[in-house]
Amino acid sequence: MTEFKTVRGMRDFLPQEAKMMRYIEGETRKIAELYGYKEIITPVVESYELLAAKAGEEVRLRMYAFQDLGKRRVALRPEFTPSVARLVATILRNEPKPFRLFCVGSLYRYDEPQQGRYREFWQSDFELMGSDKPEADAEIIMLTNSLMEAAGLKNCTFKVGHVGVLRGVMSQENLSEKVQNEAMQLMDKAQYDEALKLVEETGTSEKCLATLRKLVRLKGGKVFEVIEKMRNSIKEYEESVAAVDNLQEILKLVLDSECKIDMAVDAGFARGLEYYTGVIFEVAVPELEKALAGGGRYDKLIALFGGASTPAVGVAHGIDRIMLALQLQKATVKVREEKTVMVIPVNEELKSEALRISRILRDADIPAEVEVTGRKVAKALEDADRREIDYAIIVGEKELKEKAVAVRDLAKRKQEIVKIERIADTIRSKGI
Amino acid sequence: MTEFKTVRGMRDFLPQEAKMMRYIEGETRKIAELYGYKEIITPVVESYELLAAKAGEEVRLRMYAFQDLGKRRVALRPEFTPSVARLVATILRNEPKPFRLFCVGSLYRYDEPQQGRYREFWQSDFELMGSDKPEADAEIIMLTNSLMEAAGLKNCTFKVGHVGVLRGVMSQENLSEKVQNEAMQLMDKAQYDEALKLVEETGTSEKCLATLRKLVRLKGGKVFEVIEKMRNSIKEYEESVAAVDNLQEILKLVLDSECKIDMAVDAGFARGLEYYTGVIFEVAVPELEKALAGGGRYDKLIALFGGASTPAVGVAHGIDRIMLALQLQKATVKVREEKTVMVIPVNEELKSEALRISRILRDADIPAEVEVTGRKVAKALEDADRREIDYAIIVGEKELKEKAVAVRDLAKRKQEIVKIERIADTIRSKGI
Repeated sequence: MTEFKTVRGMRDFLPQEAKMMRYIEGETRKIAELYGYKEIITPVVESYELLAAKAGEEVRLRMYAFQDLGKRRVALRPEFTPSVARLVATILRNEPKPFRLFCVGSLYRYDEPQQGRYREFWQSDFELMGSDKPEADAEIIMLTNSLMEAAGLKNCTFKVGHVGVLRGVMSQENLSEKVQNEAMQLMDKAQYDEALKLVEETGTSEKCLATLRKLVRLKGGKVFEVIEKMRNSIKEYEESVAAVDNLQEILKLVLDSECKIDMAVDAGFARGLEYYTGVIFEVAVPELEKALAGGGRYDKLIALFGGASTPAVGVAHGIDRIMLALQLQKATVKVREEKTVMVIPVNEELKSEALRISRILRDADIPAEVEVTGRKVAKALEDADRREIDYAIIVGEKELKEKAVAVRDLAKRKQEIVKIERIADTIRSKGI
Repeated sequence: MTEFKTVRGMRDFLPQEAKMMRYIEGETRKIAELYGYKEIITPVVESYELLAAKAGEEVRLRMYAFQDLGKRRVALRPEFTPSVARLVATILRNEPKPFRLFCVGSLYRYDEPQQGRYREFWQSDFELMGSDKPEADAEIIMLTNSLMEAAGLKNCTFKVGHVGVLRGVMSQENLSEKVQNEAMQLMDKAQYDEALKLVEETGTSEKCLATLRKLVRLKGGKVFEVIEKMRNSIKEYEESVAAVDNLQEILKLVLDSECKIDMAVDAGFARGLEYYTGVIFEVAVPELEKALAGGGRYDKLIALFGGASTPAVGVAHGIDRIMLALQLQKATVKVREEKTVMVIPVNEELKSEALRISRILRDADIPAEVEVTGRKVAKALEDADRREIDYAIIVGEKELKEKAVAVRDLAKRKQEIVKIERIADTIRSKGI
């Protein structure tokens, strides 16, 4: 007999973890409501062309791509942004801007599994479309901070950069977009030497190389001091100057709004996706090497998908990553804990009476299980005890004649006879 | 420029529908809590062998099956039960029975798209493992009824049958399992003549054919009258008699528990999945031809997946089907509607102040949007009005000096100056 297993890189969430996952998902939805983001649900299966259009080589090669039975080339979404961009470029194209969209669900990438990295993972995604202003970028950073706080994470740090700084230098030095993309990909993996070598091999100027070399080392320390150093390094590159100004304005807005947030600027910071055009950021905690969230500005993506040119900024939060970080921080998740009840009929004839009483409890919003294995009462009570159920309701002939049942507090080992009409109140309000 | 579209059979849920989907999903989770079902999350991608093991030809041929990059034969889950059975047969194998599991998510089948049928669809799934008693079956039917009520559906009817009645006849007549499965598949599609013809071609007895012919016509009318007629038709088939007794006991438990439920027995009722062994049922509303939910008993599945023999009964509810039924019934879904606020800075210098005030509102649980496009106040107010936002908060120099802002009730077209420290209370409690 084959033992069936999950496919490599996939996993199950058992009840305790599933509860945390749904809790974090619920918090992302709450943040979406508080910031005015409307939820949409897009399919897991999208056309390969859509998902591959601007994903970057890394992601493109690791997609779950296949042909469906109608010979369409499809793939499982590796991120939400292309689906959202598709919607904005088509169905939502005539909606007045700006608008804010939110989605949450599972994503798929064929990466090498390791701690905190699975081939099926869960994200919430926030996209603010139709504003090129720094306050839009600031909002995306702030809401990410709100989510991390709401989830109960401690010691989050935001690493912030701006792709316009590096790209400004490379563009003005006439490096091709292909080389730029490859260099950014290498920097994303902190392979700075390789990135610089790649640029050097194009035969670019010594000034270009020196500037890039300086930039990739610039990080940490006080936010506005680093920004000043960036500015000093790229004075002769017009686009880069504009990018630094933009970055400064965004971070100033965030900090002036009295948002409690720990930020560090990193001038050599790049992200794997090619479509970013402005500020980029990632969130991490000391306990976990991988980022919990990442986002940035992508002003050209919507047009790429056939829509009107639409400036946009967005962020994705890793729900399972956040869960892992909470576990590593040994955080307790505040999940509503209801009193639980098990209803036990003392014999076969009282089964429907037990079902009826469980229905009365549930109608009063009290979770109730019914004993359904035909066990003796003593056995059922043992099981209820082991599972830390709060109350057992024992349905017996004698008490039923008085329209009552025995209610047993399993922790206190105390039992009382309670009228059925009073039972929901009794359990909810004070116990017995 | 290609216009990107959803893949055929897939679809997007825009905000209004997404809200309904999440609302129904939330109701299924509430029912799970009330009945003591623990949520688990299993992967969308499972091994082909697992999903194909006992799915029935119909489903097997319509799976989204493919090879992953590691040459593993995988598929997108077409239902939850195999994944749950896998867990129960492996990780959960030593957990004391009974246990109750719940999952909710998206499923995939390559069916011909039509009203209420997409290739990506959403279900909640409840499985009660470890009891072969009729009260377990009754519970699954009752919780389905609770969900339909909670979702706000009207005029639901439950079609109920028992695969043991038809299979009892065919088994005693020595029809092979293959023929039985094919006959049941045809009956599932209401192709009774074809099913009977198939059986006839095996050269079975005239008694067998006459009994089956009688059974497939038996449906509707009063529940226990139909059951009596069934009993009279299958007297000489031992297993079928036991099945009718079992069905009667289950339905009696449901009705005696004073569950308000509209049930009709259908002796020729079969379901597409091969693994059912006992009671089966489906839920429908008059407005929609397709079933909103379906379930039944499957006592042999866990053993098939390598686990200890474990009697089980379960149900799946179609979340998008329920949404469609609600739309067809023009039901209004009670979704919490918060007051909404748009915060508008009167000039560039006040942007961070606007962000700060929005943060204060959100900290007080009030949804707040910030104007992020740099529009003039009049334009922003127009937009807020069009989108039926409740309040605009206008952040201006003069009021700020008094630590105050202007709060405008957009419906009443009334405006007042409110201290910032009072702003959350003002909006939440009484408006202006």
